[in-house]
Amino acid sequence: MEVTRILAKFLVTHKAAELPDAVRHEGARSLLNWVACAVGASKHETVKRALAALYDFSGPREATILGRRERVDIFQAALLNGATSHTFDFDDTHLKTVIHPSGPVASAILALAEHQPISGRDFLHAFILGVEAECRIGLSVMPNHYDTGWHITATAGVFGAAAAVGRLLKLNEQQMVWALGTAATHACGIRETFGSMAKPLHPGIAARNGLLSALLAKKNFTSAEQGIEGRRGFAAILSTQFDPNAITEGLGKTWEIMSNSYKPYACGVVIHPAIDGCIQLRNEHQLKLDDIARIDLKVHPLVLELTGRRAPKAGLEGKFSIYHSCAAAILLGEGGETAYSDAMVRNPKVIRLRDQINAVVLDGVNEDQVHITMTLKDGRVFEKYIEHVVGSVDNPMTDADLEAKFRLLCKGILPAAQADKLIGLCWNMGKLKSAAEIARASVPARTRVKAKRK
Amino acid sequence: MEVTRILAKFLVTHKAAELPDAVRHEGARSLLNWVACAVGASKHETVKRALAALYDFSGPREATILGRRERVDIFQAALLNGATSHTFDFDDTHLKTVIHPSGPVASAILALAEHQPISGRDFLHAFILGVEAECRIGLSVMPNHYDTGWHITATAGVFGAAAAVGRLLKLNEQQMVWALGTAATHACGIRETFGSMAKPLHPGIAARNGLLSALLAKKNFTSAEQGIEGRRGFAAILSTQFDPNAITEGLGKTWEIMSNSYKPYACGVVIHPAIDGCIQLRNEHQLKLDDIARIDLKVHPLVLELTGRRAPKAGLEGKFSIYHSCAAAILLGEGGETAYSDAMVRNPKVIRLRDQINAVVLDGVNEDQVHITMTLKDGRVFEKYIEHVVGSVDNPMTDADLEAKFRLLCKGILPAAQADKLIGLCWNMGKLKSAAEIARASVPARTRVKAKRK
Repeated sequence: MEVTRILAKFLVTHKAAELPDAVRHEGARSLLNWVACAVGASKHETVKRALAALYDFSGPREATILGRRERVDIFQAALLNGATSHTFDFDDTHLKTVIHPSGPVASAILALAEHQPISGRDFLHAFILGVEAECRIGLSVMPNHYDTGWHITATAGVFGAAAAVGRLLKLNEQQMVWALGTAATHACGIRETFGSMAKPLHPGIAARNGLLSALLAKKNFTSAEQGIEGRRGFAAILSTQFDPNAITEGLGKTWEIMSNSYKPYACGVVIHPAIDGCIQLRNEHQLKLDDIARIDLKVHPLVLELTGRRAPKAGLEGKFSIYHSCAAAILLGEGGETAYSDAMVRNPKVIRLRDQINAVVLDGVNEDQVHITMTLKDGRVFEKYIEHVVGSVDNPMTDADLEAKFRLLCKGILPAAQADKLIGLCWNMGKLKSAAEIARASVPARTRVKAKRK
Repeated sequence: MEVTRILAKFLVTHKAAELPDAVRHEGARSLLNWVACAVGASKHETVKRALAALYDFSGPREATILGRRERVDIFQAALLNGATSHTFDFDDTHLKTVIHPSGPVASAILALAEHQPISGRDFLHAFILGVEAECRIGLSVMPNHYDTGWHITATAGVFGAAAAVGRLLKLNEQQMVWALGTAATHACGIRETFGSMAKPLHPGIAARNGLLSALLAKKNFTSAEQGIEGRRGFAAILSTQFDPNAITEGLGKTWEIMSNSYKPYACGVVIHPAIDGCIQLRNEHQLKLDDIARIDLKVHPLVLELTGRRAPKAGLEGKFSIYHSCAAAILLGEGGETAYSDAMVRNPKVIRLRDQINAVVLDGVNEDQVHITMTLKDGRVFEKYIEHVVGSVDNPMTDADLEAKFRLLCKGILPAAQADKLIGLCWNMGKLKSAAEIARASVPARTRVKAKRK
């Protein structure tokens, strides 16, 4: 079965008018959440260091780094927006694959939208198609692909970026096959980097490489004909499993973006049930950090696999520690970015409780569930079972929740009125004359500088 | 064992003065051959299409595409020189790994040398260190890594580029560890692309990403601490085999560049014994294409694995057909780029003989060997056994052979005197004040344009 060609044909022929309203709305929710995450991390050391390395090498300064005033070329913008949007690990999650779908796709096409005119309607359509491509390709190789150690957001993301950019460049079917082939040969990103700055760079790498793959294809730069399913193609090399039907069945009928979810907490989703439960117990019983003697968690295997770090040393690493996450959540009553500062990870009180938290794997506990047993110093014991964590598909964040998250993330970066305007633009994406408006509306006003005395 | 750190420490502390003369000379031979291949393919459709896609997005136009007059930013130069140097598949081969070592490393550091002053001595030293890093990392995961379908020139090449650039940027040990970690997460390139333009792009992708990895590390952009050997690191994910000793043992004592080889024919090395033997038989018996009824080859398994295409349709694809290669070699008496034009692949006489050539795998035949049985239409039968193909480590091309190849590749691109000057600069690299001289000396003089009438 010519999987790559079938997918390419779908990507170049699907009509925007055929998108159901609910799909379009979920697309807008994903974009809103993506913009919030990118703006929120726009002052983080990760982007500062990357920008220090790259800025002087920029080409035409056509594109925006969301939330910042510097302008860079479209490849750098794709790379850096991909990176900022994933820095807090607060972006969206396609739970069936654990792909963070928006970063690779939106970063690539927003950069393109600052190079050539793209309507909001076409942008939203291409975004949804790109997410569809990356999630289906991800599904076709899960779970082995991720278990092996691939960061699937990066490896599948590059296809999503190539697909979405390719659609906006109006590639023909053969060119789209080549774009996907060149994307396949760019698939990279390993989990050994988790806890370092290279991890959030991954969606940016995928965005930049997908953009390149599509731009090359537009000039008839040839590539593999069967980049996905070929004998030496993506699936055969990067996975021991491959289900081609996951890519080809029901194209245009079901939409993977409908399985997208948004995080209330700024870390990997597998920790969320535990944070949710700890915050609920804290609030129900008005507990303080010092009240607690120990916490015992029964969790899904991925929790320890991904977030079992006992003694994180930096904020970014704290996101990979269920122990730190629960301790910080009990101190703060929330799991936003504040919980993952370097200072919080080094806070002696948090460390003291962190070391009294234990987690074991229990058969039958799903990824969105947890059993918590909390023992207080006074001898009381509380239990909490989370069946569907907040932010999961079965218990999603509302539009209002997403707006509140947006405003929180923009604090200290954009004035409240500007954040509200940006929220409006995101909801209204499908009707914007130019998709680039959201990029420009995210730039903070220039601070007034006193004129130098002569 | 902290493999990444041991390698990083070696890369940042090794002294140029400790390089044996023979190693330095082999470095110069590799560079000479690399420049020849890059200049030779500088007018190829592959680079034209890539340049058409990229040119307008270039940053500061500091760097040269060897053999061309356009100037581009250092990332584009790294990408495009990597691509041209591999377009003819005529570049060097580290036979133990089948890595083409020069492309990723030289393309990255030559671009850097046009951005900041780098002496020829430092350049040659960094080049040799980069080749050492990529070949050792390649050796540590062979043969499984390549057998799986990875294009090892790309996947190992990115480490070589990061190592060499990192050395020239004077990274400290920790920064070099991060540069190698970020390189690890960029490792990509699949064999499904073989026969298309995306294949020669691979060393360019490795060069560009290695350059990026080192530039990021210079600004303290953090990455994995154990990018190579970690549980979710390069070796564990991209191979089922891993021999860490191949990376760490004898560092600074043995030099992988001494196992580098140079091709007399413009295609993958595994076909070379068959071409060598066919040309020898043709010349010994003064044969013409029409004299031959059939040819039977007994070959190493990789020959059919890599070059078993029965009916190639384009020149690039012809490089992956032992059948086409032998037929064209008998027509031309050589195996240069002429044998791999689109026209040659479609030549009816070549096709007629091609279809009468058979190849079977024989146990005990090494990669640099072949048994040939040639049956003529008049009933005569000739046999030829090639024990060590020309261009192999046991039967290397001489310095004069390399110069002749250089001049042949420059034909039609550079005047003979300019080619000779460039040859001189390559041999003299270790003493050049600025390594960038070889880039500038490769640019064809501007064609005189008549002054416009007013």
